[in-house]
Amino acid sequence: MKQRYSWLLLVLLFPLLSVAQTPAITRINPTNWWVGMKNGNVQLLVYGPQAGTMTYTIAYPGVKLVKTNTVENPNYAFLDLTIAATAKPGQVQIVGKKGTQTVTQAWELRARDNSPKAQGVTAADFIYLAMPDRFANGDASNDKFADLRDPGSDRANPFLRHGGDLKGAAQRIGYLKDLGVTAVWFTPLIENNQPLTNEGGTMRASYHGYGFTDQYNIDKRFGGNEAYKAYVQQAHAAGLKVVQDAVYNHVGNTHWILQDLPMKSWLHQWPTYTNTSYRYNPITDPHAAQIDRKISLDGWFVPFLPDLNQGNPYVANYLIENAIWVVENFGIDAWRIDTYMYNDQPFMNRCNAALLAEYPRLHIFGESMVSNVVDQAYYTRNKIDFPFKSNQPGTIDFVLEDAMLAALRETGTPAATGWDGGPQHVYQTLAQDVVYQDPNKLVTLLDNHDKNRFLSEIGDDLDKYKIGLTWLLTTRGIPSMYYGTEILMKNFKDPTDAEVRRDFPGGWPGDKEDKFTAAGRSARENEAFDFVKSLATYRRDHKVLHEGKLMQYLPENGLYVYFRYDATGTVMVATNTTDKPAGLPTARFSERMSGFTKGRNVLTKAPLNDLATLQLPAKTAVVLELAK
Amino acid sequence: MKQRYSWLLLVLLFPLLSVAQTPAITRINPTNWWVGMKNGNVQLLVYGPQAGTMTYTIAYPGVKLVKTNTVENPNYAFLDLTIAATAKPGQVQIVGKKGTQTVTQAWELRARDNSPKAQGVTAADFIYLAMPDRFANGDASNDKFADLRDPGSDRANPFLRHGGDLKGAAQRIGYLKDLGVTAVWFTPLIENNQPLTNEGGTMRASYHGYGFTDQYNIDKRFGGNEAYKAYVQQAHAAGLKVVQDAVYNHVGNTHWILQDLPMKSWLHQWPTYTNTSYRYNPITDPHAAQIDRKISLDGWFVPFLPDLNQGNPYVANYLIENAIWVVENFGIDAWRIDTYMYNDQPFMNRCNAALLAEYPRLHIFGESMVSNVVDQAYYTRNKIDFPFKSNQPGTIDFVLEDAMLAALRETGTPAATGWDGGPQHVYQTLAQDVVYQDPNKLVTLLDNHDKNRFLSEIGDDLDKYKIGLTWLLTTRGIPSMYYGTEILMKNFKDPTDAEVRRDFPGGWPGDKEDKFTAAGRSARENEAFDFVKSLATYRRDHKVLHEGKLMQYLPENGLYVYFRYDATGTVMVATNTTDKPAGLPTARFSERMSGFTKGRNVLTKAPLNDLATLQLPAKTAVVLELAK
Repeated sequence: MKQRYSWLLLVLLFPLLSVAQTPAITRINPTNWWVGMKNGNVQLLVYGPQAGTMTYTIAYPGVKLVKTNTVENPNYAFLDLTIAATAKPGQVQIVGKKGTQTVTQAWELRARDNSPKAQGVTAADFIYLAMPDRFANGDASNDKFADLRDPGSDRANPFLRHGGDLKGAAQRIGYLKDLGVTAVWFTPLIENNQPLTNEGGTMRASYHGYGFTDQYNIDKRFGGNEAYKAYVQQAHAAGLKVVQDAVYNHVGNTHWILQDLPMKSWLHQWPTYTNTSYRYNPITDPHAAQIDRKISLDGWFVPFLPDLNQGNPYVANYLIENAIWVVENFGIDAWRIDTYMYNDQPFMNRCNAALLAEYPRLHIFGESMVSNVVDQAYYTRNKIDFPFKSNQPGTIDFVLEDAMLAALRETGTPAATGWDGGPQHVYQTLAQDVVYQDPNKLVTLLDNHDKNRFLSEIGDDLDKYKIGLTWLLTTRGIPSMYYGTEILMKNFKDPTDAEVRRDFPGGWPGDKEDKFTAAGRSARENEAFDFVKSLATYRRDHKVLHEGKLMQYLPENGLYVYFRYDATGTVMVATNTTDKPAGLPTARFSERMSGFTKGRNVLTKAPLNDLATLQLPAKTAVVLELAK
Repeated sequence: MKQRYSWLLLVLLFPLLSVAQTPAITRINPTNWWVGMKNGNVQLLVYGPQAGTMTYTIAYPGVKLVKTNTVENPNYAFLDLTIAATAKPGQVQIVGKKGTQTVTQAWELRARDNSPKAQGVTAADFIYLAMPDRFANGDASNDKFADLRDPGSDRANPFLRHGGDLKGAAQRIGYLKDLGVTAVWFTPLIENNQPLTNEGGTMRASYHGYGFTDQYNIDKRFGGNEAYKAYVQQAHAAGLKVVQDAVYNHVGNTHWILQDLPMKSWLHQWPTYTNTSYRYNPITDPHAAQIDRKISLDGWFVPFLPDLNQGNPYVANYLIENAIWVVENFGIDAWRIDTYMYNDQPFMNRCNAALLAEYPRLHIFGESMVSNVVDQAYYTRNKIDFPFKSNQPGTIDFVLEDAMLAALRETGTPAATGWDGGPQHVYQTLAQDVVYQDPNKLVTLLDNHDKNRFLSEIGDDLDKYKIGLTWLLTTRGIPSMYYGTEILMKNFKDPTDAEVRRDFPGGWPGDKEDKFTAAGRSARENEAFDFVKSLATYRRDHKVLHEGKLMQYLPENGLYVYFRYDATGTVMVATNTTDKPAGLPTARFSERMSGFTKGRNVLTKAPLNDLATLQLPAKTAVVLELAK
């Protein structure tokens, strides 16, 4: 506890210390800005000893210092600037004066480049989620740095950095393209200069990236800002989009600002340490108590990730400007938001609106791990008259994930034909899509870095694996897949999550196996890889699986049939979740099949000349392209 | 199948038969009407041989025959009347002419009486649901009639009539009042002159009342129309309201109209017999196929209950006018609607609107047995932007019932403290109340005549029984209780439902036990009875448990706390669902407890002088009235 309140002591001591101190500017955030942005307002955080005690002036054509804000801590000034549409790129001199002392600090206004950025992801995409530390190591020289708080690197230790980096990821862009992937989402790349700690036997590491220590730096173990810029350029050149993993709710407890907080209210402060309850119900419950709501929203995610107070306008501006800076600086295409439901929701709306105002095509989808569609709808544009209305374009569809896993667990068992069993889980979940403005903007998944790996959830059963991936890649939504799923990586989540975040074999020089190549994969792994590739490629090339309407039929006897259809075609997906082959008469589906006389199995390419009755093998999803 | 299509043969034969037939009027529905109704339009169904071939005139001051409608079957005419506000009570002569023949039939316009009617039920009420055939037999002379299709009566046979009637129920009005009940809901009393059949070993009976054969008659085995009028008057005199069980979706297959259908489209006709799928998902699913929706809505409930086509305006008028006639004629107070979700929803809105236009306080709540709040919300006034918006004021809260039972099943087990276990079921369900315009208008329950009896669902455990009834009687909503719950009647549903519809002991002359009296009940039964009575009486007398706001706290460690509060007081309900006593510090509840220094246990009357920590016995719900 003590460490986190050291700021209070500092604030109290500052008036005494300040007398003797020479004012200085050691940091300005955003680190630069651009001319020609739609929103010409920027609030600069200016930091340095006694930075808040100076009087600031700016003499630069088109840039106006509207107001200088001072706060509790005299080491901060927040300068409100307006940048006129006529302003030209160049070095803006920020001039601070105190008595006879003058401090000048250059701050750059850049020209916007015209490289692709903020292209968005849509249901035409297939997102590949990778943890950069665990995917591929292209530069052994940046595996560890003696000047970082966690100077170690050890692939044998699940908590330490393993050395994966952007250079390694860049070398696998071709691999992802070959797999049919169209967008990559890395868990956060932003600097996590956090120490490795042992809290009562629980190791706390930062290789995962969710404890930011400086939002304007990409971690140098991943290659730093230049490597990320280069990665995005290479990805875009190859037709691969990049999704940023954003974290607004909290920062690492060694974030530079936390060493010298601008004000007590920068964080959600509690009389004694208070963890979030991890409960979403109090946020939407009309009967909730204030304290339950406050604990959910303002409680800390874990002790080493202090909770930012987004109700503080300086914090809000800081986070929003950083978000825009990241999109503009790196050219990223879409925006995944960590722990979305624990954020202040009015702040989230402001932040989303600011991003969308600059980048209308940017897709934004947050992580809200809920288990019912009402609460899931709350975090995206929805059709429920909640007192608060979210403006988030998408969200991650954890409810459908739960339903698909439940259905697959029951596949091949008597429960598959139960009243609410087997495919009913999926059917009944999609049947509630009325709660969303556009369910096709939800990002679908079978697992992620916080969950049991998909293959382990379904008992290492390749039949179920294929059904799950078929559903993922053919139903509504924007599919995402966790790295390694295509090569049958598996494991159950352990308390540290490390077991579901293992290195991709072949990503490191000298790896005994290289599963990035067909030769390095086993026959079973190639079967899986080829399955994903075939379906992802078909999906990529067929618009009907992007924006085509979905029509689903009530599952009967464990058989679940749905269609995607539009003016360009009709694709039929028929799943037999029982453990016996089944003949499926198709007369019932005439609303969608009328006029079609034949078909083609999308995966086997086998023609089908009689659509009257389909033969469905046990535990199989068949994907058919219908033809006249 | 053949029997149901005999109408077709009749229609085809009629033109031939008609030549020789003398026109006649044998039946007019509604059987009478009233002057001074808000809506002055009535459509009379006039039935008799060749009734549809006559020309009608009406000469009665204030009554105008606007139009005579003829349909496929010449035995029907549908007369559109307007009744002016100036019309006086009296006998309206309906005159039909054909050639030289004149037929005159009197039809009564009555004065409205000013007895209480349509008082509504609200959260101030406590509804007692009874099956009249199984509750009390006050008149042995009406147990069976030789002229009915099912002339038998045998208490030893679960499928036959047992003889319960309105006279018997009237004798127990005092019993219900003593129990704290404020409203009685009988399963349908309307004539079910259906035969007892054996369909492949499954007995099909009509003692339950859901197969109407004439909507203008109360079954004479219950005492007929006069007995019902008398019952309602006695109930009202005693301060007990009466809820009508309405069935619009279907009728008994021996309904008089089905013997000679006005037109083919009176029913939902199918090329081959088609049962409803009993599935609600296709009704709300934005991805549903038309055929799935049609089967849900227009499929028959069972083969002997033909599905009415409410899209047919004559059917719609017939049903709506009967509904108004029932309220006006018998003076009933509220309206429960059977199989609500299988009805045509635009029709239901018309019907609800017509009833509410005449009787603004009438509460209407349908049976829609769904398992998620989105679908449940669809059938009442809600806050979801469905393409179709229901105007139904209430609905039966089956989702909360499921949640309470799930919570109680886990009570006393390790699951009670699980992440989503025990009281979380209840808490998480109520937390989704945002989907309803007014969740306090939902009718809550622990079981009913179609379910396992509550006590059996919870393992015959009196502790759980008390928790369940405490929740029912103190949380939001309009509580309903199935008859016999108060005397610990139990049983699991068998295929015929008869096991959960046993006779109330003491309801028949000569019964060995009379559980309507304390002396006839065992000690355990009296403990249950007294528990329900104490809580229901407290509830009845305390407005805070009617319209007071609900505030619920996140359950912790299997302890679930909520409050009802308003200007008149604060009631705290604290449930320990674990199998160990617990001390509950109350600091967390300060938003509701601040200012209160003491309390009183509502059931034991024991005072509580220290609210800092509550002592909660294992498996117990404590109800406290807080005081300053």
